Amino acid sequence: MHTIIGIMGGGEADMATRELARELGHAIAARGWVLLNGGRDCGVMAASAEGASAAGGLVVGVLPGDDLSGVAPGVSIPILTGMGDARNVINVLTSHVVIALAGGAGTLSEIALALKATRPVVVVGWDPGEALHHAGGDLLVIVADADGAMRAVEEQLAARGPSAWRH
Amino acid sequence: MHTIIGIMGGGEADMATRELARELGHAIAARGWVLLNGGRDCGVMAASAEGASAAGGLVVGVLPGDDLSGVAPGVSIPILTGMGDARNVINVLTSHVVIALAGGAGTLSEIALALKATRPVVVVGWDPGEALHHAGGDLLVIVADADGAMRAVEEQLAARGPSAWRH
Amino acid sequence: MHTIIGIMGGGEADMATRELARELGHAIAARGWVLLNGGRDCGVMAASAEGASAAGGLVVGVLPGDDLSGVAPGVSIPILTGMGDARNVINVLTSHVVIALAGGAGTLSEIALALKATRPVVVVGWDPGEALHHAGGDLLVIVADADGAMRAVEEQLAARGPSAWRH
Amino acid sequence: MHTIIGIMGGGEADMATRELARELGHAIAARGWVLLNGGRDCGVMAASAEGASAAGGLVVGVLPGDDLSGVAPGVSIPILTGMGDARNVINVLTSHVVIALAGGAGTLSEIALALKATRPVVVVGWDPGEALHHAGGDLLVIVADADGAMRAVEEQLAARGPSAWRH
Repeated sequence: MHTIIGIMGGGEADMATRELARELGHAIAARGWVLLNGGRDCGVMAASAEGASAAGGLVVGVLPGDDLSGVAPGVSIPILTGMGDARNVINVLTSHVVIALAGGAGTLSEIALALKATRPVVVVGWDPGEALHHAGGDLLVIVADADGAMRAVEEQLAARGPSAWRH
Repeated sequence: MHTIIGIMGGGEADMATRELARELGHAIAARGWVLLNGGRDCGVMAASAEGASAAGGLVVGVLPGDDLSGVAPGVSIPILTGMGDARNVINVLTSHVVIALAGGAGTLSEIALALKATRPVVVVGWDPGEALHHAGGDLLVIVADADGAMRAVEEQLAARGPSAWRH
Repeated sequence: MHTIIGIMGGGEADMATRELARELGHAIAARGWVLLNGGRDCGVMAASAEGASAAGGLVVGVLPGDDLSGVAPGVSIPILTGMGDARNVINVLTSHVVIALAGGAGTLSEIALALKATRPVVVVGWDPGEALHHAGGDLLVIVADADGAMRAVEEQLAARGPSAWRH
Repeated sequence: MHTIIGIMGGGEADMATRELARELGHAIAARGWVLLNGGRDCGVMAASAEGASAAGGLVVGVLPGDDLSGVAPGVSIPILTGMGDARNVINVLTSHVVIALAGGAGTLSEIALALKATRPVVVVGWDPGEALHHAGGDLLVIVADADGAMRAVEEQLAARGPSAWRH
């Protein structure tokens, strides 16, 4: 069974955030992990898919729509949900660890849903605020950059072990 | 068509928060509106349902499970989703205005999902943090107490008009 | 807690089927039950909502979309899911008994999902086929007309009792 | 982007059906396609996953639960939905072609949902009934065995072309 790492972040993102997403996608694929994201052809989704794809990795894109229109070119396995933002729940449940880049309401919902489902969340380069810290406790980690993110993901995977998501 | 006001908040809640939930549920029913909440027999859900029910109002409970176990006694119309936290999306889409009491990750996810779906959110007596404020803009209002909440709900309903949720 | 009876059937329906839907909606409301359907302004959904509404009943419409566009006028409580056909699962889980009028693939999916969830299904005036009969066993009943349908619904409610949907 | 072929069928299945599932899973993987199924460790799901896995293929299992308990060993990419039978919608939307083996209400719901979403369905070795034939038209094909199924899948893929699921 593959290790699946999610990258969440804004559909609109500035160049630095997109570059960070690309770097993280590449690093995930380079470690042999599967990248999961929201699958759309914009912002953090497109950039992280491109990074993982360039490194020869698998990219699972969990899409809000019911067809392949608007899917990012880097996605290798598009999961069509037709469920709009309810697919955010699938994104975080399926990810062994969630990496959260800067984003808006959608990204904040994914951080909150991940914490509710006790999935660890690694936030890179921004602060989602005191209320989410309080809700998440040890599950929420903030790091400064891509290297810190990959170290934090590895620590979370090691701490939880392969059976962490079996009840 | 009924006006539907959602109350979100923790499944675990202290006595003051439960009393606030009860008061708000009562006030919603007294205005002839339908109360919507997460339907479970605990915390803000049970208390707001009890308040609305005591005032003779309709209470729609959108439940995470697929049967009636654990439904709050005040719920008059239980909607069984069997979808776990994905039902949070339905809660906020269906509410014309969302009132958010203190809560944890689940409540924060509902605030974020509401803002993503452009539903107005009235937060009562706490602060969900800068990131959600930034994501929400004018859609997110913070008030101090139940009276302030009901005024804010009325303002949002008036500002948007009956056709606000038609595209 | 209200008794909730679902009516499923085609978004496209001939005049006889629409008249049957209207009659059944009226009969459900006349008994003090809540009508649940798919909420759209066409076919069996619009006609059954109109019938129940004319009798002063509550109509819960569980819609595939995320706004109020295209909702049937008879719907009093629109539940917005934004989940497309995944809302069919909610329709059948929430209904204490499902009445199925003639329809296409969507209606057949609702019959199958209802049987999977052990909700009784009363089919009126058509035959969904041997495979569904076999899958449903005693849960699937075929009747000829509206009177037969209401008798079958009452029998199912009586046989199962008020706690039937509590596990 | 990978070609994704779904196999649906009973969680309980006799030995001949499980052997057919294994053979089809193997044939799908041997062609370089991704197998998608419901991911659980029983019946057609477990057998088809085992067949594809033995041929070195990728297996996407779209699970009803929110953790990895009960996932079939052959699944390489488990998608956790936490949505119960609503995940059936994702199964059929995501599959370029759906192969349906003998099953009960769950499988019938997937055939119906696939036809509603205009996904082609290849039924192997049984007959889902006149109503589904009528609803499906040319989208529903019945074949006798695994060889017939693979030919029918190839014809459907060729007829629709790579852009068939883009609107």
